[in-house]
Amino acid sequence: MKGLGLSELKPTVLKIGGSVITDKSKELEVRMQAINRLAQEIRDANIPNLVIVHGGGSFGHPLAQQYAIKEGVKEEVQRVGFSETHHVMTVLNGLFMDALIWRNVPAVSITPSSCIITKNGRIQCFEDAPLKMLLKMGFLPVLYGDAVLDTKLGFTILSGDQLVSVIATKFNAERIIIGVDVDGLYDADPKVEKKAKMFKHLTLEELKELQSKLDKSAACDVTGGMFGKIAELLSATKHGIPVTIVNATKPNYVHKVLKGKKVKGTLIEKE
Amino acid sequence: MKGLGLSELKPTVLKIGGSVITDKSKELEVRMQAINRLAQEIRDANIPNLVIVHGGGSFGHPLAQQYAIKEGVKEEVQRVGFSETHHVMTVLNGLFMDALIWRNVPAVSITPSSCIITKNGRIQCFEDAPLKMLLKMGFLPVLYGDAVLDTKLGFTILSGDQLVSVIATKFNAERIIIGVDVDGLYDADPKVEKKAKMFKHLTLEELKELQSKLDKSAACDVTGGMFGKIAELLSATKHGIPVTIVNATKPNYVHKVLKGKKVKGTLIEKE
Repeated sequence: MKGLGLSELKPTVLKIGGSVITDKSKELEVRMQAINRLAQEIRDANIPNLVIVHGGGSFGHPLAQQYAIKEGVKEEVQRVGFSETHHVMTVLNGLFMDALIWRNVPAVSITPSSCIITKNGRIQCFEDAPLKMLLKMGFLPVLYGDAVLDTKLGFTILSGDQLVSVIATKFNAERIIIGVDVDGLYDADPKVEKKAKMFKHLTLEELKELQSKLDKSAACDVTGGMFGKIAELLSATKHGIPVTIVNATKPNYVHKVLKGKKVKGTLIEKE
Repeated sequence: MKGLGLSELKPTVLKIGGSVITDKSKELEVRMQAINRLAQEIRDANIPNLVIVHGGGSFGHPLAQQYAIKEGVKEEVQRVGFSETHHVMTVLNGLFMDALIWRNVPAVSITPSSCIITKNGRIQCFEDAPLKMLLKMGFLPVLYGDAVLDTKLGFTILSGDQLVSVIATKFNAERIIIGVDVDGLYDADPKVEKKAKMFKHLTLEELKELQSKLDKSAACDVTGGMFGKIAELLSATKHGIPVTIVNATKPNYVHKVLKGKKVKGTLIEKE
């Protein structure tokens, strides 16, 4: 059970979006079938040095919004709201861990709020020794978007996307895979706009250009929230870590990408 | 939601034994009634600066034993055993958190394996900033015995008792309350020996004397495992932190002790 040095690990960081493993139209509604399918795909791919981060979907988001956790400490009622938001995220994570471990995947959850403190919403202090050791020992660490403590705001929400970017950069990841509920990054919201055009490949330059266009053209995110997620990953792309956006609701897409095979999706590279 | 400085906090550290909240005769058997009753007692006591640590009982122990997790890394099959052991502890913790949060207690779980690494079974590195901040902000942090990473052994088991002692000493606790399934510390196992005599009060000197007597008289722990737990708390007692051992299976005992009232039990003090 001895592992390589950390510099040789070059992990793959896989994000599973909350919209894939939960039904965002209903509160606390898990898509157990999707979780089980993904657990099986991850087990069958059996790739080394994998880190998983999953989102909150209909578990974390409605409570975080109800109590305005992201905005920080404002009133007494938020206190138990913070407790609830963190708790439901541990419940969703537990369902995912169940699915992995019963398939004999040596997955170990890492609770972000137990080892990360943010400052104005950005990760300030991250005790990553357990994550490092787990990877070195051949475990599969699983993290998630969480309600965390914040030195300026009191508390806030740490998104899975920020976690992915920070872990990938810190650990010099080989690649980032973003599993979402659409086929890739589009120039408009593909769930609304039938004529939305998907990008197959984008360089950092093209992405930045696109970003400035989008900033000027609309007050809200016309890509259906996807661009906000991607913006979070820019720093990892700058470090030369390629990002693949793929539809994780379609069977075998995540499995194929993990195995290095081509599937429909958006690839973002530095150059 | 502003709190006091840490030096003024002087928390109460409450341990809830695994034998109280689970049925140790059956694997993965929770005593939900006991968890709900204790959650209500904790809520009703409503004391500030409380930290809870709970044991593993029939969740953590059977798996930890089956895979010899405490002894460290030896063979491949232990890897998923470590994952399982940690996972079932998060499940038990989740049930406890549920009971607290649905009663509007602002409880937040802290996952020991996410912020603690041991060396030969003893806590070596403990990122306690989240615990400190939670206390300062008026939350109720809840920790538990867990399967953790170890710099010498690879991994091991961190007992809730060691956690209690380290947290109490580090945070200069006002008192430690140990909730178990017997009335206190006896000179023999009260579940086996009808004539076992309970100690109402012990000083550190008396406890040490008793310990050396027990060490000489038997290869195993004649007190039914209780003395091992107490030995773990000696360093806290040396720091002047009083320890009360109380029967947490009896309704209102924990509530009364939290409120500073007298109940049957064993009090251990420095002098």
